[in-house]
This record gives sequence, structure tokens and C-alpha cells, in this order.
Amino acid sequence: TQSSHRLLAYSDALIAIIATVMILPVAHTKFQENEVKQELKESIQSLLTTKVSVYLMTFLIVTVAWAAHVRLFQVIERIDDTLALLNLACMMLITFLPYTFSLMAAFPGSVLGLTFFCACVIVIGLIQSYVLLAIVIFLPYISLSIKWIWNKAVGDSGQVEDTDPVLFYNYLPSEPLSKERVEAFSDGVYAIVATLLILDICEDNVPDPFVVKKEFNGSLLSALLNYGPEYLAYFGSFATVGLLWFTHHSLFLHVTKATRLMGLFNTFSLAFVGGLPLVYQLTNEFPRGSRNELEAVQISCVIIFFAGLFQLAIWIVGLFNERETLHPYVRYGGREHAFMLAKLSLYPCVALGTFFSTCVLSRFSAPIFHMMEIGVPFAFLLLRLLVRAGLALLRRL
Amino acid sequence: TQSSHRLLAYSDALIAIIATVMILPVAHTKFQENEVKQELKESIQSLLTTKVSVYLMTFLIVTVAWAAHVRLFQVIERIDDTLALLNLACMMLITFLPYTFSLMAAFPGSVLGLTFFCACVIVIGLIQSYVLLAIVIFLPYISLSIKWIWNKAVGDSGQVEDTDPVLFYNYLPSEPLSKERVEAFSDGVYAIVATLLILDICEDNVPDPFVVKKEFNGSLLSALLNYGPEYLAYFGSFATVGLLWFTHHSLFLHVTKATRLMGLFNTFSLAFVGGLPLVYQLTNEFPRGSRNELEAVQISCVIIFFAGLFQLAIWIVGLFNERETLHPYVRYGGREHAFMLAKLSLYPCVALGTFFSTCVLSRFSAPIFHMMEIGVPFAFLLLRLLVRAGLALLRRL
Ligand SMILES: [K+]
Ligand SMILES: [K+]
Ligand SMILES: [K+]
Ligand SMILES: [K+]
Ligand SMILES: [K+]
Ligand SMILES: [K+]
Ligand SMILES: [K+]
Repeated sequence: TQSSHRLLAYSDALIAIIATVMILPVAHTKFQENEVKQELKESIQSLLTTKVSVYLMTFLIVTVAWAAHVRLFQVIERIDDTLALLNLACMMLITFLPYTFSLMAAFPGSVLGLTFFCACVIVIGLIQSYVLLAIVIFLPYISLSIKWIWNKAVGDSGQVEDTDPVLFYNYLPSEPLSKERVEAFSDGVYAIVATLLILDICEDNVPDPFVVKKEFNGSLLSALLNYGPEYLAYFGSFATVGLLWFTHHSLFLHVTKATRLMGLFNTFSLAFVGGLPLVYQLTNEFPRGSRNELEAVQISCVIIFFAGLFQLAIWIVGLFNERETLHPYVRYGGREHAFMLAKLSLYPCVALGTFFSTCVLSRFSAPIFHMMEIGVPFAFLLLRLLVRAGLALLRRL
Repeated sequence: TQSSHRLLAYSDALIAIIATVMILPVAHTKFQENEVKQELKESIQSLLTTKVSVYLMTFLIVTVAWAAHVRLFQVIERIDDTLALLNLACMMLITFLPYTFSLMAAFPGSVLGLTFFCACVIVIGLIQSYVLLAIVIFLPYISLSIKWIWNKAVGDSGQVEDTDPVLFYNYLPSEPLSKERVEAFSDGVYAIVATLLILDICEDNVPDPFVVKKEFNGSLLSALLNYGPEYLAYFGSFATVGLLWFTHHSLFLHVTKATRLMGLFNTFSLAFVGGLPLVYQLTNEFPRGSRNELEAVQISCVIIFFAGLFQLAIWIVGLFNERETLHPYVRYGGREHAFMLAKLSLYPCVALGTFFSTCVLSRFSAPIFHMMEIGVPFAFLLLRLLVRAGLALLRRL
């Protein structure tokens, strides 16, 4: 029903936010001035050791909680007020999963972090399985016995209907994840990544009137020109998030059902998409032409490469099971098949090309990277023409 | 189609984020130590003069942009790749609306801020009206002339069908806003408010291992107990956001069409919901029992009161036009009518009661406020019983 649709979409958005939020401590790690002067490699290594692994682990844990939520609500058919409130309580507890996990990671010696984390997992499991139990097992019996008592009390025994006790649930554990909810969860991740970018640009980049008066002789324009590279980085990052959403949208437009493996690859792709705020911060952080900047750009290319590659992997897995998973007209050899493949391989190819060209032209790494980010939308517009021309040429030969 | 549905829901989420994001500079205003010792009133006044008005103005401006977007896509029936990419470009420009507006507010003397803001508005208008023009006016003629040329070239003039040139659009400017998109936009605002709360709790509240060792003799538990009031504030705020979403959800479940006035009241309600991160920060900021804390709690009550009151106003406007806007069973005197009214008036009443009880018992303001926030979910569970009992009693008399 419409009721449960909106409740579930909102839950998906919240869980996506919770899954992605731990990228923030990674992205906002302050590189001290003296650290910036050292090689980035060491700071990156210190980042990688705890924060990135905490991010990836919480992303996977929260995604597992989300998958359990999806399975639960595939069982439930009707949602009333009590269930909606229980669902919100469950959301609030899932909020604490990243927090307790990062507590556990920050204090590996203390039992308390581990205890909190386990308690959180157990309570979430209990709420979800309580709901499951209440719905699947007891409700039909309760409703049957109430009906029986009602009939006894009223005495109108002639009107007993053969009501189906399976009316309230529909338990199919081997059913693939609902495609609609995979889309809603993915939308949530893309939306929160966009949020983090928007927050960054809106909060820090309005110059202080006092500083403008003092340092720029009151000229707002010269103060704003100071932020030039940040605007470029913002445009580039926003375009990248938007286009990765666009390819995801195009891909799932042609998918009819998502298998388990496709869901797994989708999670991996989203985990890399969640790394994009880190990309934005890193490419902004370091002085032009330094070795740090080169490495930041290369890390960015790697993140974009994997985000695109796992989308491509979803498509390839889909092609292997094309009868169950894809619309007829995009199946192997279908009308849209070549175009879809070109669309999905654009980002991995471009990211790979940028990576190698920054290795060769290491002094121009950041401009190349931003040109790549801003040029890709136009590549998408050209792609359909190129694929048509390519196919026509192929047929001629 | 499914394609346009997902594209529009994602656009709604992004625009909601952009509308709400300017609450952040308000909420994160650092109260200097010496300011905290003064009365809150002065800092609140300095806040109110620019930042809160900037927030409210950008919220309204972005909402107007959103309404234009809704009208545009009520006209468009099919979305292809080019349109999807243009839509993303439009989103990126809308991102800059709050930024340029806050630039304009920070430098009222400079022409540059005003110029940027106007340029932004004009370009967004051009993109949207370009799309509108292209679709509504030219496309049918273009497709007709292409068809004519095709028929001339092939010469198969017998097969000319009477294709309807109005196939591509469906222009109804007096049509009320699509209910689905009002819901999606509202969900986006509630989700971004929840995000800001989650960001706050996850980023700042994991204690530093170094500090724990030094100040708390390595005892994690005593360090965490230090954060006790913040957890309480977080639980309370999250419950309030969740329950305001819940009443909104219940309300729109029974609405079939939203009139203009209902849309306007919804925007006002959402603008106050966007103030909830400010509530969370304010009630956290000040020492226990101080006058500042009392005023922070009272401001919080006022914000919650108006957020609830405008939801109630939507319902009352709906009742006045019940034939066009409401499902039959919730109309005046219907089965769910009294229950819905009780549900929607719960928050305004409780906020009002809390406001007056904090005036009387001014020393216990924060505990009363948090008890209120955490008690309301249980009130919702009791409400159905109470309304039933009340109605039964009324019939007896
Ligand atoms: K959604
Ligand atoms: K969403
Ligand atoms: K969001
Ligand atoms: K920034
Ligand atoms: K949405
Ligand atoms: K959202
Ligand atoms: K905090």
C-alpha cells in the first residue's frame, strides 16, 4: 500500500544516512601543517589503519541490518501505528551502531565498547525478530481465537467463514531483495553524499566580512577568487556523484530483479561512492603541484574507478542471469545492450585513463582530474551518437 | 513511469537538502565563553537578525524553485537521458542559491552578492523554461515535420496516422501540486534534519583515547557518563523528528489532493522542522539551571509548537474542502476523524503545556523538556484507546 511504501522509503533513506555517516570523521581529519609538509603517504597510512576500516566495517554492518529490515518488511503486509512507531525506535537504535562501533575501534582494550556494540546488535535483532514472531506466528492464531470467542459470545455460529490464516504474512526467505528498496537505499546513499558536499560548500566558503575588509581592502571579488579552486572541486565532485547516480538509475531501469550477488556488488559500489566526500576534501587540501596533491588525485581516481567498476559488475552478473534479471530489450544482443555497456564502462575507463595520465604528467595532476570530472557529462551526451556510429560501422565491415 | 518516479524522488530529496542546509550556520554558531555568561537574549537577538532570517528566506526561495520544478515535471510525460542530465545541472545550480543568498546577506553593501544571486535565479529559470519551451511548444511540431519529411522520402503516403500532437505534454497550470511530490519533498526535509542530528552525535561524541587516559584515569565509562545529557538530548530530538514525520505521514495518508494553501502550510511546518537541529544545539549548550537554559528550552517549545500547529492547520484546511481533499472515512464525523484530530493536536498541546510548566518550574526546565520529548511516543500509543473511551463516554451522555 501507499502507507507502507512511504514508511519503507523513509526508513531506507535513514539507514543509508547511518551507513554513510562514518566517512565524515575520515574526510574531516585535520592534516596538521607540519604533516602536510611531510609526504601524504604517512598520513594516508594512519588514516587507513583505523578510520577507513571503521567506515567500511560500519557500512557493511549497517547494510546487513538494512537487508534484515527488507526481509522483515517483505513478510509484513500491513503496517499499523504501533509497527510504525516500533520501526522508528529501531531506526534510532541503528543510529547507534556506527557510534558504538567507532567506540569499539577507538578503545580496543576496553570491554565496554564491545559490550555496547553487541548490546546494540542484540536489541535491534530482538525488535526485528519480535515483530517477525508477533506477525508470522502469533497473529493468525490470536485473530482466529478472537473470532472463535466472538462467535461463541454472539452465538451466531452459522456465519463462520473459512478465513485464510495466512492472510497476514507471506514468508519467502529465498525471494531476492525487492528492487524498489535497493533503489531507495541507493538513492539515500547518493543523497547523503551530495548533502555532505553541499554542507561543506555552504558552511565554510562564505568569507568573513571582517577578513574581507582587512585583507582584501573590502573587495569581495578578490576574496571570492581565493576560493576558485574549491568551487571547481565542488562542481567536479557534484557532477561525479550526479553521474554515478545517473548510471545507477539507467542500470536499474533495465533490471527486473536483483539477485543476491547483484545486491552485494551494489553495496560495494555504494561503499566507494560514500568515499567521494573524502575525495573532495583530499583534492582540496594540498598545495598545487606538490607530491601530496598527485597522490590525493590518484586516490580519487581509484575510488571513482571502483565505484564505476562494481556498477559494471552488477550489469555483467545481470547478463549472466539475463532471463531472470533483465528486460528483454537489453539482453545480450538486444536493442540497448551495447549502449548500456558503453555507459557503464565510461567511468572505469576514464578514471583509469586519468590515473595513468597523472602518472605521466605529474605536475598537472589536479587540472587533469578536474577537467575529467567536468568533461564526463558531455561524454555521456556524445556516447549515444558514438555507439550508433560504431554499430553502423561494424555492420558495414 | 518508474524512470521519472525515481528521478523526481531523488530531485525532491536534493532540493529538500538544499532548502534546509542553511540552518547549519545558525545551529553551529559558537557562543563564546563570555557570551554564555551574559544573558542568552542578546546572542539570540544577534542570531535572529541575520542568520535565522537568511535560513527562512532561503528555505522559502528554494521551496519556490521546487514548486516550479514540480509544475515543470507535471507537464513533461517522458524523461530521456538529455533531460535527466539537464535536471542534474539544474540541481547543481539550485545548490548555489543558499550560498549566493548568504553572500548577499553577509555583504549587503556589495553589488556582487546581489548580482550572483540574481544570475543564479535567472539561469535556473532559463534552464527550466528552456525545457518547458522545448517540450511544450516545439517538440510536437518537430516530430510532425519529421514525420512529414519521412513520409515524403519513403513515399508511403497511405500510412499517415492521425497522431495526436498533444501526446508529449499535458499542461494544466491550475492543477494542485502532486501529492506524491509533496510527500517526497517533506521526507527529504525530515531526512536531512535527522542527518544533521546523526552527524552531530557521531562526529563529536567519541572521546579521544588520549584525553580518557589523562583525565579519567583510563576509565571509558566515566568519560562516557560525561556525555550523558547529550545522549538524552539526542534521543529526545530524534524522537521528536521521528514523531513529527509520523504525524505528517498519518495526515497525508488520508489526503487525496493538496490545495495551494495546504502546500503553503506544509512549507511553513517544514521550515520549523528544519529548526530542530538548532533546538538540539541550544538545549545542549548551556549549564544546568541557568537562565540561558530556560530560554533555550522555551525557544525549543515554540519551534515544536509551530511545527505541529501548521500540520494541524493543513488538516483543518483539508476539512474545509473535504470533498476534494480527503478520503471519505476521515471527513467530518467519519470513522477516523476524531482520532486524527487528537493525533495532530497532541504536539501543539504538549509543547504549550511544557512551555508554561517551564515558566512556573523554571529551575527544572531541561529535565521537563526531555521528559516531554521522550514521553510523547507513549502518548501516541495511548491516544487511540483514550479517543475510543472518550467517544464511548460521549455517546453514553
Ligand atoms: K526514497
Ligand atoms: K531518498
Ligand atoms: K539525505
Ligand atoms: K569547504
Ligand atoms: K524521497
Ligand atoms: K533523503
Ligand atoms: K555533539
